[in-house]
Amino acid sequence: MASSEFKPLDEKSLIEYIKNTPVLSNQIGNKFDELKIKEVGDGNLNFVYIVDSPDGSFVIKQALPYIRCIGESWPMSKERAYFEARTLKEHGRLCPEHVPEVYHFDHTMCLIGMRYLEPPHIILRKGLIGGFEYPYLAEHISDYMAKTLFYTSLLYLTTTEHKRVVAEFCGNVELCRLTEQVVFSDPYRVSQYNHWTSPFLDHDAEAVRENNDLKLEIAELKSKFCERSQALIHGDLHTGSVMVTSSSTQVIDPEFSFYGPMGFDVGAFIGNLILAYFAQDGHSDSTNDRKSYKKWILKMIEDTWNLFYEKFIALWDKHKDGPGEAYLPEIYNNPELRQLVQRKFMTDLFHDTLGFGAAKMIRRIVGVAHVEDFESINEASKRAECERKALEFAKMLLKNRRKFDSINEVVAAM
Amino acid sequence: MASSEFKPLDEKSLIEYIKNTPVLSNQIGNKFDELKIKEVGDGNLNFVYIVDSPDGSFVIKQALPYIRCIGESWPMSKERAYFEARTLKEHGRLCPEHVPEVYHFDHTMCLIGMRYLEPPHIILRKGLIGGFEYPYLAEHISDYMAKTLFYTSLLYLTTTEHKRVVAEFCGNVELCRLTEQVVFSDPYRVSQYNHWTSPFLDHDAEAVRENNDLKLEIAELKSKFCERSQALIHGDLHTGSVMVTSSSTQVIDPEFSFYGPMGFDVGAFIGNLILAYFAQDGHSDSTNDRKSYKKWILKMIEDTWNLFYEKFIALWDKHKDGPGEAYLPEIYNNPELRQLVQRKFMTDLFHDTLGFGAAKMIRRIVGVAHVEDFESINEASKRAECERKALEFAKMLLKNRRKFDSINEVVAAM
Repeated sequence: MASSEFKPLDEKSLIEYIKNTPVLSNQIGNKFDELKIKEVGDGNLNFVYIVDSPDGSFVIKQALPYIRCIGESWPMSKERAYFEARTLKEHGRLCPEHVPEVYHFDHTMCLIGMRYLEPPHIILRKGLIGGFEYPYLAEHISDYMAKTLFYTSLLYLTTTEHKRVVAEFCGNVELCRLTEQVVFSDPYRVSQYNHWTSPFLDHDAEAVRENNDLKLEIAELKSKFCERSQALIHGDLHTGSVMVTSSSTQVIDPEFSFYGPMGFDVGAFIGNLILAYFAQDGHSDSTNDRKSYKKWILKMIEDTWNLFYEKFIALWDKHKDGPGEAYLPEIYNNPELRQLVQRKFMTDLFHDTLGFGAAKMIRRIVGVAHVEDFESINEASKRAECERKALEFAKMLLKNRRKFDSINEVVAAM
Repeated sequence: MASSEFKPLDEKSLIEYIKNTPVLSNQIGNKFDELKIKEVGDGNLNFVYIVDSPDGSFVIKQALPYIRCIGESWPMSKERAYFEARTLKEHGRLCPEHVPEVYHFDHTMCLIGMRYLEPPHIILRKGLIGGFEYPYLAEHISDYMAKTLFYTSLLYLTTTEHKRVVAEFCGNVELCRLTEQVVFSDPYRVSQYNHWTSPFLDHDAEAVRENNDLKLEIAELKSKFCERSQALIHGDLHTGSVMVTSSSTQVIDPEFSFYGPMGFDVGAFIGNLILAYFAQDGHSDSTNDRKSYKKWILKMIEDTWNLFYEKFIALWDKHKDGPGEAYLPEIYNNPELRQLVQRKFMTDLFHDTLGFGAAKMIRRIVGVAHVEDFESINEASKRAECERKALEFAKMLLKNRRKFDSINEVVAAM
């Protein structure tokens, strides 16, 4: 069914919609008697329905023309659904193991029908709060990042193809603007949306707003975010955008995707692991001091970067004679020089990663949208203590990121 | 007249075209008896006609679907005429004093009708070869660069407007590819198009192709050129794209324009002044040793950068509360911090300028398209000597650009 105009669905009209959309009704064997529909949108932006029947299941995600968690007072282009579907399909093509399949996209309705990530899949962030270990997490997420970032960059694309997709994703400007505001601006100024664990962090929040060094660094990162079209990035790759089981890792919600700096994705993921680390002291109790779990998170941080490095370079080596136009074979294919340019590229990317990671940490403590890792610590003074440690570490990282040569040094500093 | 299909004009069909195009025929008072038409395209790409009559004059520029100086064997999108007209109008709006007026654009015919820059306007490069001084050159060109680069960047535009124009100019990809090839690739590999003053510079050309340090640096600059959409740059701002008299400075030929790094424009101009400097020894004779003229060129180099710096910062200060979204007033409007971010911004831009300037110098000595500054030195050994000095300086600049803190240091090194 192609709808002629946009209308927000509810559980009732959704059933009608499914009945009129063969690719969806086939998914549940065309049986509507035992259909269960559940609205589960716990994110900040959209409505999400799980559609389940004995014969199959799927998820329906619909974008509304405002930000769900704020309300109609903060309008937001529903066109974001197009870019989410576009990137789910593109990233899914490049890394099908870690991106859920899209069954259906309705542009008019801003609606995506996609794979339901069945239990025991849970949001990674909740797993990290619960203290669960995921043996394949670093392996999987590094695989996803290496493939999606490498194959959409000039390391693999021709300039012609690159500029075509850069132009297309310029259309997702409203979501980019939202990131600019909440990551790069609001934490550094007085804003009605900012909040923090008050009164404990009142001075800490003020100190961020009055720190010229931080403002200098955040300006450089913001300009990279706005101006550098390096790869098709997910744009919001925190631990709430990843669903996991002990053997599966699935990346969801790329509605913020656009052509931006690779370090923004790698940094988002690693920065949120660092937040999870600093939150652990707030989750320890007499039965579990979380010490060994903290070690596991540190290992995840190390492994994620190191495996990403390894896989990214392996793709580069594999495709050194490929279509990519950044480093032409006739110029760069002597092994010594290729190593040299690869090392330089990865060092720059590492420093971007630390910078963006730090920026994402800061905004989760003194900005509009906080993380459950800290929010779920009930005792405010204890929460503030964890948050302060994370904030201080992030500030240090933002200012000194270029002094770090390896992820081991970062982990040692934690 | 709107043509229904593209056809290359000759002098005869051009008259018919003008008769059918009121905005052009009005320009010459609708008098065709004393009309003089002269083809003067001495550039590398297009056909250019001067249309002159007692009642007025104009220039017609038509893009053909290949590169004129190579021939039909090197096809090139004639759509470049659209981007040239687009940027002439936009840069002309921002800096009417130094951009010739566009009277007419015919998209189908890839044809621009524009102001004829009457004698004594000559191409600046020819003036520099002739040893002429232009008292307003640095003042004017710095004005043009400061205005066109500032007003088209995020220092003045909103993100929304910025992404809209970035997307539009992604369409000029074929011209970007040409630059990528001739500036960032060909000089560093064996290419059928490369040439140099042989046999004198055979080893010098080979040394460029085998220098890993240069290749590392040129890769970084190429990635900035391809990925960083900082401002609407002219894209080919060498001394052959500027026409001058003692009191007028006019920038022409922005067909390579797109959203790229500001340093590519500033570097192109300064790099070509440096080439002019090193060519002077080849133009000296018993009547004129060119010593004082060389000093004047050095002064031009210093003044161009210093005035550009001054004017750019003045625009920034003037519009600190303007629509630009890079540095929001609530965050950056304390004077100390603004100075800090401005200094950092300009230092980065200075290093980009030196890097791109050096790259443009190298390609003019060992790449496909050379400059008349050197080509007009008849004695090959003398020419090679000048070129070698320029090449060595450019290599040093490309590798050590980050060590220079001011333009005075660059001039001192020359």
